[in-house]
Amino acid sequence: MAIKPTLSKGTRDYAPLEVVKRKYLFQLIEEVFQKYGFQPLETPAVENLTTLTGKYGNEGDKLLFHIRSNRSLKESNPQIAEALKDIPTGFIPESSDRGLRYDLTVPMARFVAMNWEKLPMPFKRYQIQPVWRGDRPQRGRYQEFYQCDVDIVGSNSLFNEVELIQIYEEVFTRLGFQDFTIRFNHRKVLNELAKAWGFESVFSSVLISMDKIDKIGISGFASELQEMEDLSSTTALDLVNLLSADVSEQWNILNQVMGDCEGWKEVNYLIQKVGNSHAQFDISLARGLDYYTGTVFEVVTHEVQMGSLGGGGRYDNLTEVFGLKNMSGVGVSFGAERILDCMEELNLFPTQLTPSKTKLLFAAFDEETFEQCSSLLFEMRKLQVPSELYPEFGKLKKAMKYADSKQIPWVAILGESELKEQKISVKNMISGEQNIISWNELFQLS
Amino acid sequence: MAIKPTLSKGTRDYAPLEVVKRKYLFQLIEEVFQKYGFQPLETPAVENLTTLTGKYGNEGDKLLFHIRSNRSLKESNPQIAEALKDIPTGFIPESSDRGLRYDLTVPMARFVAMNWEKLPMPFKRYQIQPVWRGDRPQRGRYQEFYQCDVDIVGSNSLFNEVELIQIYEEVFTRLGFQDFTIRFNHRKVLNELAKAWGFESVFSSVLISMDKIDKIGISGFASELQEMEDLSSTTALDLVNLLSADVSEQWNILNQVMGDCEGWKEVNYLIQKVGNSHAQFDISLARGLDYYTGTVFEVVTHEVQMGSLGGGGRYDNLTEVFGLKNMSGVGVSFGAERILDCMEELNLFPTQLTPSKTKLLFAAFDEETFEQCSSLLFEMRKLQVPSELYPEFGKLKKAMKYADSKQIPWVAILGESELKEQKISVKNMISGEQNIISWNELFQLS
Repeated sequence: MAIKPTLSKGTRDYAPLEVVKRKYLFQLIEEVFQKYGFQPLETPAVENLTTLTGKYGNEGDKLLFHIRSNRSLKESNPQIAEALKDIPTGFIPESSDRGLRYDLTVPMARFVAMNWEKLPMPFKRYQIQPVWRGDRPQRGRYQEFYQCDVDIVGSNSLFNEVELIQIYEEVFTRLGFQDFTIRFNHRKVLNELAKAWGFESVFSSVLISMDKIDKIGISGFASELQEMEDLSSTTALDLVNLLSADVSEQWNILNQVMGDCEGWKEVNYLIQKVGNSHAQFDISLARGLDYYTGTVFEVVTHEVQMGSLGGGGRYDNLTEVFGLKNMSGVGVSFGAERILDCMEELNLFPTQLTPSKTKLLFAAFDEETFEQCSSLLFEMRKLQVPSELYPEFGKLKKAMKYADSKQIPWVAILGESELKEQKISVKNMISGEQNIISWNELFQLS
Repeated sequence: MAIKPTLSKGTRDYAPLEVVKRKYLFQLIEEVFQKYGFQPLETPAVENLTTLTGKYGNEGDKLLFHIRSNRSLKESNPQIAEALKDIPTGFIPESSDRGLRYDLTVPMARFVAMNWEKLPMPFKRYQIQPVWRGDRPQRGRYQEFYQCDVDIVGSNSLFNEVELIQIYEEVFTRLGFQDFTIRFNHRKVLNELAKAWGFESVFSSVLISMDKIDKIGISGFASELQEMEDLSSTTALDLVNLLSADVSEQWNILNQVMGDCEGWKEVNYLIQKVGNSHAQFDISLARGLDYYTGTVFEVVTHEVQMGSLGGGGRYDNLTEVFGLKNMSGVGVSFGAERILDCMEELNLFPTQLTPSKTKLLFAAFDEETFEQCSSLLFEMRKLQVPSELYPEFGKLKKAMKYADSKQIPWVAILGESELKEQKISVKNMISGEQNIISWNELFQLS
């Protein structure tokens, strides 16, 4: 009985050309990470639930994938094992103690808590691996997808923030993005503002509204402020004025309010260090409520309609939940799936990306020429030329179709007459041009 | 309340140097695969259980990891959702309909069955991804580990087998293995032998015993044969003589028995094509009982005590279970974890593999030199030199320790006096030599 082949919901196969495009992105990102001194880390897909639960809020906990093995149940209790021995696989319920990785930050924190004595400090690591979330799948949202994270653990220096902004700048520029912004803000500046303008009691609501200005506009923001009972109309007006001002006006207003508060000093250090880049201070950037405690970042492109292409920030006490105190962390993430979608839309992939590396396909007319082709093939490979021999002889049409499908640029066809003269017919699959050349000339194609 | 950080059983973290070593292996293997015209494929970790179950025998089914998301249960039935709303995450049993990938062959067969009309045929693909098995963990055996597979689907040509042997030859040679053997055999030769010598009724038992000769020796093999009731003592003696003969004697014996049987012709084609390599025909190689239908392969090293480092073979009707008939497949797998263990033991990793790519670490005495260091750093990075600035100034001892830990070969230290003269002190961390050079000379270090 044949089974209908299906993909599990929210997952995808990556066919050869897709793998090649994804690797192009990941390798470029990785090269930049390494240039900035970051080291690779990989953690297992499967983590104990004690590591995962309670770290992502109630909503996150609901999206965790839980895992069990049949063996673990059967081994846990011989009586249960006996009772269940005829129950088909897949119908045995069990409470699970393991789950699939939900992000790359918590596994890193676990790793640091377990290994910090052996690690260089600060620990600068990058990690490019898939994560799993039981979200309802929809366009652009998957249950299995890649994250690319880069973090510094164990350093309070603001210079780390400078480097993270430079990494964003270098990666997006090298990928070919032109019109993008690296927005940054500081949670301590927002806190100071709330204190100075007296909206601490509705702080969360104001931040939530601010985060939505992209979608609801300044007028939407104003009306949401109006509905907040504990917010004075003066403060509401001040906020609307601040948020609708341009960057330099905003800076002037804030400079008066902030005085020499720590967060404001840090913001000004960053402005000075990364001023001549795509980075921009943006008081409206909040990035959620609970997680970050210092700087926050977000990258947006203006060339394509798409949410943020990455984000991050600083979080104190990253590893405290695993028993290791006073470890500050700062990091950013690249939204790989969205970046790939944008690159597709903006045609940013190099044209030389092809679904195979094969440069030359041999095709033979008969058994004798097939044997000679195989010798020529082995020579080409000794010269390190990626090459193939179509494995059936006398099927030239199929061989041509094969070369087309793999975007192989050259096809070399050996017939009886060429064989006698130690020559071979070579066709350029792009121009369509065809020439008969000697075997020696063929080897020089490498 | 702090949680004790733990790894899930049978899983590992890969610290930076381990990632670097693993990537060295995977990239070398990948480069060879590409040179032979193979294309990359990646499939999701999560597959529907309909795809996975029943493909790996009863034992395999027991080792499958099953997956469920809390959301899927709660959404499946509002009444259940209501009843369970106060039950903590992780305590809700559910019958699962998904699982984790157990190998790379079944997902590939599923992919081919779903996409064959769009694929080049034959489809030559490689796949390097983790798989999961609920085996009891022990030394060298993990629940999450990598496989490296290379297969050709949709071609009956024996030339594919030639290429697979060449791939084994090239990979293991380039890795630095010297004393290894690529054993090969043919199921049809074994079948023919059973027919000719009349041991078809105990065929499976003979094969199982033969597969164990490595462990039990020829005498162990002989005594196992004696215990088989349906095996004549003449045949038992013939088998013992055959298996204890050297390679050329074996060939002579078999050549008389086989006549012009198809499997024997194929074996001789392979011997002719790959004679001058580490490949060796070996009549004792069976590789399990059910799966393979043609050639079988296995790689062993004689330099380290270790099981096989890879294996594979030809299987007819690879995709039939997914409704696509007459697709023959042939492929081999590299046992990545074992190969890595061997390479560690034989010191086969290039000495230039280091846990970071950083060539130069800047360290500053005070705030002023820190700022100048950051400018020098940005210059070095413009020259594409992987480099870092230790993020705290005045901590030279810590900076040195940091450079040691990351195996950074050069440390550049900027003090007040050097700053004035536009010079910098550069220390070679390998030789210990230290020199004061100009900033211009520094840039030439790239």
